[in-house]
Amino acid sequence: MVRVLAVTDSLGTARTLPGAAWVSVNSVKGGIDLGGTKVQAVIVDERHDVVAEAKRPTPTEGGPPEVVARMAATLAEAAAAAGVSTDELDGLGVGSPGAVDGETGMVGEARNLPGWDEPFAMGPALEEAVGTRTRLGNDVQVAVDGEFALGAGRESRSLLGVWWGTGVGGGIILDGKRWVGLGAAGEIGHIVVKQGGARCPCGRRGCMEAYAGRAAMEVRARKLKKKGHHTKLFKIMEKRDRTRLQSGIWARALEAKDGMAIALVDRAVEALGTGVASAVNVLDVETVVIGGGLGTRLGEPYVRRIEAAMLPHLFVSDRPPAVLGAALGDLGGAIGATLLV
Amino acid sequence: MVRVLAVTDSLGTARTLPGAAWVSVNSVKGGIDLGGTKVQAVIVDERHDVVAEAKRPTPTEGGPPEVVARMAATLAEAAAAAGVSTDELDGLGVGSPGAVDGETGMVGEARNLPGWDEPFAMGPALEEAVGTRTRLGNDVQVAVDGEFALGAGRESRSLLGVWWGTGVGGGIILDGKRWVGLGAAGEIGHIVVKQGGARCPCGRRGCMEAYAGRAAMEVRARKLKKKGHHTKLFKIMEKRDRTRLQSGIWARALEAKDGMAIALVDRAVEALGTGVASAVNVLDVETVVIGGGLGTRLGEPYVRRIEAAMLPHLFVSDRPPAVLGAALGDLGGAIGATLLV
Repeated sequence: MVRVLAVTDSLGTARTLPGAAWVSVNSVKGGIDLGGTKVQAVIVDERHDVVAEAKRPTPTEGGPPEVVARMAATLAEAAAAAGVSTDELDGLGVGSPGAVDGETGMVGEARNLPGWDEPFAMGPALEEAVGTRTRLGNDVQVAVDGEFALGAGRESRSLLGVWWGTGVGGGIILDGKRWVGLGAAGEIGHIVVKQGGARCPCGRRGCMEAYAGRAAMEVRARKLKKKGHHTKLFKIMEKRDRTRLQSGIWARALEAKDGMAIALVDRAVEALGTGVASAVNVLDVETVVIGGGLGTRLGEPYVRRIEAAMLPHLFVSDRPPAVLGAALGDLGGAIGATLLV
Repeated sequence: MVRVLAVTDSLGTARTLPGAAWVSVNSVKGGIDLGGTKVQAVIVDERHDVVAEAKRPTPTEGGPPEVVARMAATLAEAAAAAGVSTDELDGLGVGSPGAVDGETGMVGEARNLPGWDEPFAMGPALEEAVGTRTRLGNDVQVAVDGEFALGAGRESRSLLGVWWGTGVGGGIILDGKRWVGLGAAGEIGHIVVKQGGARCPCGRRGCMEAYAGRAAMEVRARKLKKKGHHTKLFKIMEKRDRTRLQSGIWARALEAKDGMAIALVDRAVEALGTGVASAVNVLDVETVVIGGGLGTRLGEPYVRRIEAAMLPHLFVSDRPPAVLGAALGDLGGAIGATLLV
């Protein structure tokens, strides 16, 4: 921000501001998408077009202070590329995993983050580090907000965002506004698709996420491998020097026609079709947007397969919702976060 | 309504109305709940207290004109008991099964009603027959609206109504307003609780209604009986001169500790717990209201059992919604319908 003592109004006439306020000229805002593996930062202009970006790995140790320092450093790199310092940004929005309190900036239950054993005041710590006002939101919700405002959902008044990644998250927009219920609406990953079914990472049985979440898929793949089933999944993982079956590894195994990868992704698509159709039977939204790590990586062919898997379970099957892939891609979470400020 | 040329204002001063309008004094309104077996009419005062009621069987033949005539006659009986004629009512609200167009008064897809083979303009026909302005709504939705405004949900800002009867219907109130989506929101009966599970009367597989709807429960009971399983259900039905296993018959069989009735109701409760919990994971509402024919007939002990069956599937299990039985009882649908006018 710069101090402005006079402005030019829409007719081109200069006039002095009463009291000479701090206002933004050529306002740029920052956005950060904090994930379990990477920190993605963007700088956007007034039209939310990305003018610079930076990406760094999420620290694997050091706890909350280390994570906050990495976020600030990643943002600083992006800001520098845009020719500004972070304290010149007209605010920073952050999408964080875990239970996020937008008022206080507290983040708890972020099991994907290192040493995040108890709630930590991420908002105030980050604001201190970057020198601009900082707002926090839930990672899935800000990504869905981004798709609603700027991406695949911008023609819709109501939508369900399906974030297919490590887990299966969801975000709901009804009549143009976010619906969060008492704070936890949109937990579509825990719609039950099979009574007494597979164990979910959440501890419950038969959740959609127990079949479709990447973490659950990996548990299943490891179990099958232990039982002697063949798969290229772990060879690809080792070749890429990874310890987890990240989205790109699944995509590569599918390309290589790996039987186990195909079977587990088929099972995931079936569960997604069933669970998302159930949610649509409840909400009757115009549009379903499929995003998240796996959703974005596997892309359009899998969006079409999820759409097809929904159809047998839709109550109003002659008027199905539009099913669209997330349009903002990998940067969607960070871009969506900029809408918080 | 009566023609009023002068009124007394709040200070007790009589003043002439400009133009002498038709206004209501001691306004009473009518409400009709049209079901597959009975027509229930009520007359309510300004505070929505029931001042008279009447009940007649739904015609089993004759098609839409016969149904409309029966509705008018039932309303006339209730109105007479309240000391008015139907054209003196300050409007009539109707909760109807099927696809109801509130604007045009058209009702289609009402398979529970005799000879309702194509959409029929119930609203205009009924308005003509009763002589007062008539508004139509979906039967489940008006009953849920009634519970929200006047019954179990009146302390809540958001609720899910679970109407457990022949099928399992639902109604959604979010932030104090009905949410209907593109017109069919709340079809919770067709949340899938078991992929590849039991065949539902809707033709799909694994829907909550395939286990919990009274129609599906009856199909299952007849199948089991045919296979030689013992049950008192059909004896009670015959003794009561019925052809269907209505709610009271299930209640009687449970009292008599009939093994098949207990097993099928247990299965229904399990499915309701699973499916309603899934819906709560999506919506995160404050309150769940259990109503409908079976819900109301089986009452509080079964509301508690559904609540218990939900708990293992609730994502935010340390903050479960309040689960309440419908408070307006058998007349709830007709009382809720009066809110339409």
